[in-house]
Amino acid sequence: MKHYSRREAIITFGIAATSIVAAAAAPAMAAKSTARWWRPTTAMDAMTAIRTRRSVRSFTNEDVSEEQVRALLGAAMSAPSAGNEQPWEFVVVRNKATLGKVGAINRFAQYAASAPLGVLACGNLHWERHKGYWIEDVSAACQNMLLAAHAIGLGAVWTGIYPQTERVEAFRQLVALPEYVVPMALIVVGHPKATPEPEDRFDAARIHRERWQG
Amino acid sequence: MKHYSRREAIITFGIAATSIVAAAAAPAMAAKSTARWWRPTTAMDAMTAIRTRRSVRSFTNEDVSEEQVRALLGAAMSAPSAGNEQPWEFVVVRNKATLGKVGAINRFAQYAASAPLGVLACGNLHWERHKGYWIEDVSAACQNMLLAAHAIGLGAVWTGIYPQTERVEAFRQLVALPEYVVPMALIVVGHPKATPEPEDRFDAARIHRERWQG
Repeated sequence: MKHYSRREAIITFGIAATSIVAAAAAPAMAAKSTARWWRPTTAMDAMTAIRTRRSVRSFTNEDVSEEQVRALLGAAMSAPSAGNEQPWEFVVVRNKATLGKVGAINRFAQYAASAPLGVLACGNLHWERHKGYWIEDVSAACQNMLLAAHAIGLGAVWTGIYPQTERVEAFRQLVALPEYVVPMALIVVGHPKATPEPEDRFDAARIHRERWQG
Repeated sequence: MKHYSRREAIITFGIAATSIVAAAAAPAMAAKSTARWWRPTTAMDAMTAIRTRRSVRSFTNEDVSEEQVRALLGAAMSAPSAGNEQPWEFVVVRNKATLGKVGAINRFAQYAASAPLGVLACGNLHWERHKGYWIEDVSAACQNMLLAAHAIGLGAVWTGIYPQTERVEAFRQLVALPEYVVPMALIVVGHPKATPEPEDRFDAARIHRERWQG
């Protein structure tokens, strides 16, 4: 079993930086983006990322780079969605005063005050084509973000907002969202102070064959 | 930019099979599972898996192995959940008669009839500790499953059920779920007939800085 330390991941990510120059010289693949948000990297394989990702709630003082933010958001927007509606919006919060107010809204997310970055993942009801599925779509985007953070050597945690009405309203006010944009989760991100051990949650009792068996 | 063909992924996956023997000889890491559900593999790196995953709706006749099913479910159960409540249940459906009935419930999922596998991802309200968050938890599990499928050379698609009441009831009857178990999505899985090109959905207009900017 191969473990990837945060250090290894960062080194690999750093080395891969040289290839971004070559990538920039190639014809742009995407119409909507002006630069690639990904870099070829072998930092961590997909199954390892899925299996070893844990919630990280304490961070060093190191900043998250703009390139890392792009990687996280690019990953988020790669999620599937009902009818490909892509109903998401993301508010990137670096402002210390704003992050310092999160704990008062959600007492389980006090640590946001000491994180360099929060990404508020929202559903925009104007983009919704299949009613009610935006929650699942935005959740898939959040999971991609968590995995991407882990894969590039960052740490992150999903802090729940929707469907708790008070939290929804408080976050809406915090970043001035209009009525049709619903804050669903705040993904708190930074460089992990420590990397938690993987936890195997495989539970055969949750697996049923062909039909429900208690 | 490195592309991984389905063939390459399968070959790497195949080679990694030898290491499972060594893994089985090592002391078991998990209390709940009797065997590891993952194998060390460098088949596809995490960012590539996230970026190149597409919905796959047409499949070859090849079966999905039990070991692949375990990998998919292990990935699903590695998802984060509100307060680590892990509110999920999975019904593994291989029965052709059952898969053949899916199209009548959801006309956009006719192709399930020609797939070797469907995984019905459900929320069990008895496990729910933080009300209403099970949808987000099960969605994160589904996204892990889609990424894992892609990473090990399979193809998959998320077909929506919840919150459409008729679909929820029809799937509940199809596999005899009790009232407290809510079918959320059917993940249809198989060996892809063709691998769709990656699609770059990065859209800078969905990114806002510090607060909402229309």
